[in-house]
Amino acid sequence: MFEFDLSAQSGSARAGVFHTPHGDLLTPVFAPVGTAATVKALTPLQLKDLGATLVLSNTYHLYLRPGDELVREMGGLHQFMQWPGPMLTDSGGFQVFSLSDTRKIDDDGVTFKSHIDGSLHRFTPEKSIAVQENLGADIIMAFDECAPPLDRDYNRAALNRTHAWAARCQAAQKRADQALFGIVQGGVFYDLREESARYLTGLDFPGYAIGGLAVGESKEQMHAVLEAMHACLPAHKPRYLMGVGSPEDLVNGVKRGIDVFDCVLPTRVARNGAALTRTGRLNMKNAPFARDPRPVEEGCTCYCCANFTRAYVRHLITSEEILAAVLLTIHNVHLLLTLTREMRQSILAGTFDAYAADFLSHYQSSPGQGNKSDSDARPRPAESFS
Amino acid sequence: MFEFDLSAQSGSARAGVFHTPHGDLLTPVFAPVGTAATVKALTPLQLKDLGATLVLSNTYHLYLRPGDELVREMGGLHQFMQWPGPMLTDSGGFQVFSLSDTRKIDDDGVTFKSHIDGSLHRFTPEKSIAVQENLGADIIMAFDECAPPLDRDYNRAALNRTHAWAARCQAAQKRADQALFGIVQGGVFYDLREESARYLTGLDFPGYAIGGLAVGESKEQMHAVLEAMHACLPAHKPRYLMGVGSPEDLVNGVKRGIDVFDCVLPTRVARNGAALTRTGRLNMKNAPFARDPRPVEEGCTCYCCANFTRAYVRHLITSEEILAAVLLTIHNVHLLLTLTREMRQSILAGTFDAYAADFLSHYQSSPGQGNKSDSDARPRPAESFS
Repeated sequence: MFEFDLSAQSGSARAGVFHTPHGDLLTPVFAPVGTAATVKALTPLQLKDLGATLVLSNTYHLYLRPGDELVREMGGLHQFMQWPGPMLTDSGGFQVFSLSDTRKIDDDGVTFKSHIDGSLHRFTPEKSIAVQENLGADIIMAFDECAPPLDRDYNRAALNRTHAWAARCQAAQKRADQALFGIVQGGVFYDLREESARYLTGLDFPGYAIGGLAVGESKEQMHAVLEAMHACLPAHKPRYLMGVGSPEDLVNGVKRGIDVFDCVLPTRVARNGAALTRTGRLNMKNAPFARDPRPVEEGCTCYCCANFTRAYVRHLITSEEILAAVLLTIHNVHLLLTLTREMRQSILAGTFDAYAADFLSHYQSSPGQGNKSDSDARPRPAESFS
Repeated sequence: MFEFDLSAQSGSARAGVFHTPHGDLLTPVFAPVGTAATVKALTPLQLKDLGATLVLSNTYHLYLRPGDELVREMGGLHQFMQWPGPMLTDSGGFQVFSLSDTRKIDDDGVTFKSHIDGSLHRFTPEKSIAVQENLGADIIMAFDECAPPLDRDYNRAALNRTHAWAARCQAAQKRADQALFGIVQGGVFYDLREESARYLTGLDFPGYAIGGLAVGESKEQMHAVLEAMHACLPAHKPRYLMGVGSPEDLVNGVKRGIDVFDCVLPTRVARNGAALTRTGRLNMKNAPFARDPRPVEEGCTCYCCANFTRAYVRHLITSEEILAAVLLTIHNVHLLLTLTREMRQSILAGTFDAYAADFLSHYQSSPGQGNKSDSDARPRPAESFS
């Protein structure tokens, strides 16, 4: 259990298998986000048909509603939302810290107000682990502090807390059927990142996440941190880049040794009427699509593209129909899952570099990146997706 | 084409087969409503998996958005929304007349303002048929005037227009692959209803709708009109009760000789968090469901009930998740489709009376009835669904 078998490498890119109680994860893997115990707009059956394997859910949101005790009573998160495959929960840290006006942090934990009803709550490392044990995901995360990536002093102070909390999370863990991952922090500062990787590696987690990225730094800064991490983290443990990303972020992440990704991007932009494609983002509301008989993305084999025209999808968006969100979510999630499968195949075939170069040469970036929960309610990040 | 074969009768209840260019309809049949070229919250694949055969779409809504010419350019409604089976469009009359403040009626037609942008439009019988020919449904409806059911003078005057317009619709029809149904009006007044049935039968339509019901009269009045119609309408033509209904309305309608139904009820109440069941309506938001591990309806085999708990469905509603609408729509449509299939079987087996009596003895009615389009935008009916 929780062994990570590296099947092949192609440069820094890795193809592996991570064994979990709910099945093997073939990496690289992208996890769609199911913030409130549902990947927005999809049934678990649709998600399964898309080939999803790992699903993320958000501890902060489930703790507040419906409550982690209720989820435990209902048999745990897998049973509650009927996702039979591997699941991952975050620690709640990211959401709590993003409630910047209504939370108070100390070395023991964080006191915060619910974004739903303003009630007061407190998370400590021990509480985060207890909540995540009630939820019962296969992969759970240490409670960390996500600092603004460019503020060295803040990162220095936060890192001490993050490290102390990582050890407390480990000590608090009771269930043996959940893999607790440590989270490397340190902003864009290599020395802090290396110190963090070294410290956490010393605690010997079954996997390591890289947190505090895709929250305001440049793509170049993110890539440089990933490259620095590649040498610091143990090869035979999975590496998870939290809250990332767009199609090109996945390719750039795999290129730099990342195995696991999650992001709200495909589901959130779908609800805003945007399609991710291999050449960039399309705003499906645009008037020229009104009479466009082509599929959203030519050559795509997803249910949306195999059946419907851009004209129809645009009509659904204009009419504010639920099916617009459903079809675009299917398309966007299909693209990211397909990309990770293609990358895995190319790593196994030893052709990853050519695959990545080809993909990136055709892709045009859009502004905006992921955040850590797919919720229409606060907390939400500063960036907008249009 | 458009032959109606009566397979069996059980009292006034009928089981038949109506042949259309997109397949045979086994009657009694219930048509889910896809107002804007989508049955709200469902993919065509989900609709197919539920066993839906006939889908209704609304001429008024599609004429305004995306426009019937655009739908025709895209290959017609079947192709546009990817519904491969039989389809039905209404005439737009009901919606136009329900715009009571912004429409002006004369003997030639109706001038009205769009509920979307206030622009001025005009429907005549000829225009309604032209729009419906652009849309291309298998069954199309004559342009009629739906009067308040209890106002005799209004019904008297409206009936003359409805009859003149029925003949004009027939004369205007160009396509031979669409069955144009006449619509019997006359409110709750038997003599007017009989006159209407006689007049329209004289025009020899391939099917007859009964309009102007479920719009404010009592259930007893509706049943009495249906009983009066049973003797007046030709046996070997299908009979369509427009905008009806709830589970008990379907049973009561079939009992009185109705073959075809449509209603927004299952889809609209689903989006409001209500489940239709064999014993009555359940408001799934109710607090006691928060920790209820049972399915929405015990014994139900739909995807929602086979997989999810009331606790989960309530959580989805509370969290305003799209999946709440999806799962409850699946359940509600499944119930009405299952009911019509069971009624057909019992008619074929000669046991319909016992089936109907048993069903009605367990069912508890709720207030509120159907209307003629499933739109969150105006026009909407006076009744509310809670």
